[in-house]
Amino acid sequence: MFKKHPNPLKSSRLTEKAEDTRTRILNAALDLFRRKGFEQTTMREIAGEAGVSLGNAYYYFESKEALVMAFYERAYMELPSRVAASVAPATSLEQQLSAIINAKFAYFAPNRAFLGALFRHAADPGNPLSPFSAETRHIREADQEHFAQALKDSGMHVPKDLAAHLPKLLWLYQMGLILFWIYDRSPRQRGTAVLEKKSLALVVNGLKLIRLPILGSLRKRIVELVIAVEGEGGHDA
Amino acid sequence: MFKKHPNPLKSSRLTEKAEDTRTRILNAALDLFRRKGFEQTTMREIAGEAGVSLGNAYYYFESKEALVMAFYERAYMELPSRVAASVAPATSLEQQLSAIINAKFAYFAPNRAFLGALFRHAADPGNPLSPFSAETRHIREADQEHFAQALKDSGMHVPKDLAAHLPKLLWLYQMGLILFWIYDRSPRQRGTAVLEKKSLALVVNGLKLIRLPILGSLRKRIVELVIAVEGEGGHDA
Repeated sequence: MFKKHPNPLKSSRLTEKAEDTRTRILNAALDLFRRKGFEQTTMREIAGEAGVSLGNAYYYFESKEALVMAFYERAYMELPSRVAASVAPATSLEQQLSAIINAKFAYFAPNRAFLGALFRHAADPGNPLSPFSAETRHIREADQEHFAQALKDSGMHVPKDLAAHLPKLLWLYQMGLILFWIYDRSPRQRGTAVLEKKSLALVVNGLKLIRLPILGSLRKRIVELVIAVEGEGGHDA
Repeated sequence: MFKKHPNPLKSSRLTEKAEDTRTRILNAALDLFRRKGFEQTTMREIAGEAGVSLGNAYYYFESKEALVMAFYERAYMELPSRVAASVAPATSLEQQLSAIINAKFAYFAPNRAFLGALFRHAADPGNPLSPFSAETRHIREADQEHFAQALKDSGMHVPKDLAAHLPKLLWLYQMGLILFWIYDRSPRQRGTAVLEKKSLALVVNGLKLIRLPILGSLRKRIVELVIAVEGEGGHDA
């Protein structure tokens, strides 16, 4: 669905001037998506805002969807260092998970309304812009690595059969929080902060308990559930 | 947001002929939503399909959104007897919960694609057509009653603090399944059937275990989470 376009992140392939132009178009697009809304913004307006011709805008981005994908790719490049900085002072698993999630809220905060519009557009996992699509798999997997690292650093003992799926499950949990955040109408999204705090306490408590022999059948069912859903392939989680 | 319109369910307020006209318009609208899509269908087309004037269509339904709300209200009236029939042969809690959920899948199956379009339109709990909106509260609460009844019939012992919130939590779980179903691309939505089976086993297993004293802190955190999110009021769950 997305043609290979010049990628500014591989500087050998684009001149500095071309990189600047591409970045200017992307920034203009995000600015318009925030101010006017994703659906209401046209490629012509984006080109105008960036001070380039319509043809030039299309040379770098074949569609508004390609601009959104570039926005994702930018986050994919910029988030790891921010997550690392956010996680550094954390001393417990609960704090680490909170730091990972809060780094994302901070990063995406200026685009919260835009993400809401995008979710309406791309809730369907069949849509390339969905966080569950084949096209965003590398971003999803990189993000799950943050959770894998936090679990490893915590030294928490979780039985292997479940441990293998935990980064993905924690990522899904994070996506639920982000969805809640997108539609959170409470002042300064305080509702999301409360949900995050209370649900994280629950998650970490559950992780501590799940190794108990008496919860063995429950653990087995969680693992079976994850494997069955992945095996069906109806969704690309 | 929705003006009071003649309601065919209260027959004292509408003549039989008016009821027929209203039903014909609603059926024509649902047929067009299924065939053409919700966004692509106009009130003029709906009136044409129903064989009434545009003014007459607007007399009964002020907007396409009002037609969707009438579709919800129809389900609200028709579902309880179907759920009851579906639940009747069930002998375990797991079977009962499955019967409640499957009665809805069967009822909404002809409109599955339409519900997908609707979800894009109404994912925001601030939208009256959202299953989380103030306008659909009575439907949501009636639906939660099915789960309350199943829990009561099962005779399962769940500590009171959690039991009070279980119908709502099971309803939320059901909404997750429905969301998965809407986007399920597997043949005959087999993926959803697998997810339902595996997750129901997990839910019922969890319900059996949650009374254990060793899980007391976990249970307390679940209750705190539900209360905190409700108290924030950022969402009207």
